Amino acid sequence: MARFFMAGTNLNGGMAILRGRDAEHVRVLRLRPGEDLVICDGEGTDYKCRLVYADKEQAEAEIVEVVPCPAEPSVKVTVLCGLPKGDKTDYIIQKCVEAGAEEILFFNSQRCVARPDLPEKKLERWRRISEEAAKQSGRGIIPQVDWAGEFADALNVAAHRDLGLFMYETGEREKLDEVLTAHRDIQTAAIVTGPEGGFAPFEADLARLVGLHLCSMGERILRCETAPVVALTAAMYATGNLS
Amino acid sequence: MARFFMAGTNLNGGMAILRGRDAEHVRVLRLRPGEDLVICDGEGTDYKCRLVYADKEQAEAEIVEVVPCPAEPSVKVTVLCGLPKGDKTDYIIQKCVEAGAEEILFFNSQRCVARPDLPEKKLERWRRISEEAAKQSGRGIIPQVDWAGEFADALNVAAHRDLGLFMYETGEREKLDEVLTAHRDIQTAAIVTGPEGGFAPFEADLARLVGLHLCSMGERILRCETAPVVALTAAMYATGNLS
Repeated sequence: MARFFMAGTNLNGGMAILRGRDAEHVRVLRLRPGEDLVICDGEGTDYKCRLVYADKEQAEAEIVEVVPCPAEPSVKVTVLCGLPKGDKTDYIIQKCVEAGAEEILFFNSQRCVARPDLPEKKLERWRRISEEAAKQSGRGIIPQVDWAGEFADALNVAAHRDLGLFMYETGEREKLDEVLTAHRDIQTAAIVTGPEGGFAPFEADLARLVGLHLCSMGERILRCETAPVVALTAAMYATGNLS
Repeated sequence: MARFFMAGTNLNGGMAILRGRDAEHVRVLRLRPGEDLVICDGEGTDYKCRLVYADKEQAEAEIVEVVPCPAEPSVKVTVLCGLPKGDKTDYIIQKCVEAGAEEILFFNSQRCVARPDLPEKKLERWRRISEEAAKQSGRGIIPQVDWAGEFADALNVAAHRDLGLFMYETGEREKLDEVLTAHRDIQTAAIVTGPEGGFAPFEADLARLVGLHLCSMGERILRCETAPVVALTAAMYATGNLS
């Protein structure tokens, strides 16, 4: 079913008025009066609506039912990724939104090859990808996408979640499934993954010092754009959010 | 560590001789005598080697140790996907190889938009993507990529595995985690996912009739190229192959 986020919408006495980009979207989808659509407030609530009227500038829909968006997971997961090269960021954003991330943040670390200069334009594109993926997958929020800053900033974010997972390829690590099984009732989590070259040993040491769990995901080496999606999927599965 | 599959290699009295594309790869990687590499037989066995000599045409390495490849999962999972449009096939192949698939097969179904005509050239590209991903992720096999034929052919393949999962978006379904938890000791499994438009109801009925488990992956709608990777990751996690 067609899905809209509140941005261009006014809710008013049982009616929803869609304007701007959203009104155009109604037109592009060729929705006709009598057809159903969902308007989401971006904070986890869905307004199930029936289209009453649409022209070029504006569409009006009757609010039929107000329900919590069923697609939002019970655990809010922050995905933190060392900035990868090229358009891998886009892939990470799209797939992590589909898989249920609460927010996706990029940071700079020792082995980042990509330059962390961030023109507003790139941030804008990242957010558009998140919004598109949220609409397409039926999410109740538009997951935030942002620049977290340096490695230490990222660690600081992760350390403030109920469970912080630091995906690391070598050395002494815990098993991801054991860590997740021991933390089934968490409300928030963070997943930290590295750039193409992984993390430097001193970065792993720091992560351990601030209380993150250094975890392996088995012997297969995952690309830097695959690891966050796989780890997030495992976290969703382990917390009962993939059924 | 640099990783090679047997194709261009001869094993002979404790020595490995690399020729052709593999010898060139040694040169491109600028491996020098004394450096380590792994030659995999493509059937799950790794030959840990030390380079002795390399020129333009050929490289010679001493076999130091023969071990089972640690990256191969305990469950052999066949991923069967309704043929999607464009280069989504490439993405599915790369990510499923990383995530541990045994083989990846595409099939034609009611709602496939892409035409299932398959010039040998496309199959060649698919197999090259599988080989590249297998090398990169440290796999002990090069997962087979092939065309399975029509929907009924795909069902027939899936029905012959210990556990057959049919990912379906609507109607009466089992919960993926309950099905996987009840089948932890399987040796083979199949995951069947649809094309862009999903499966037609009669296709789901057929899948149920041949004994596949119709499963949901929660309320978030996954793209056709995301669903196989997420389902495979869940299966790997549930069977202890992601730690």
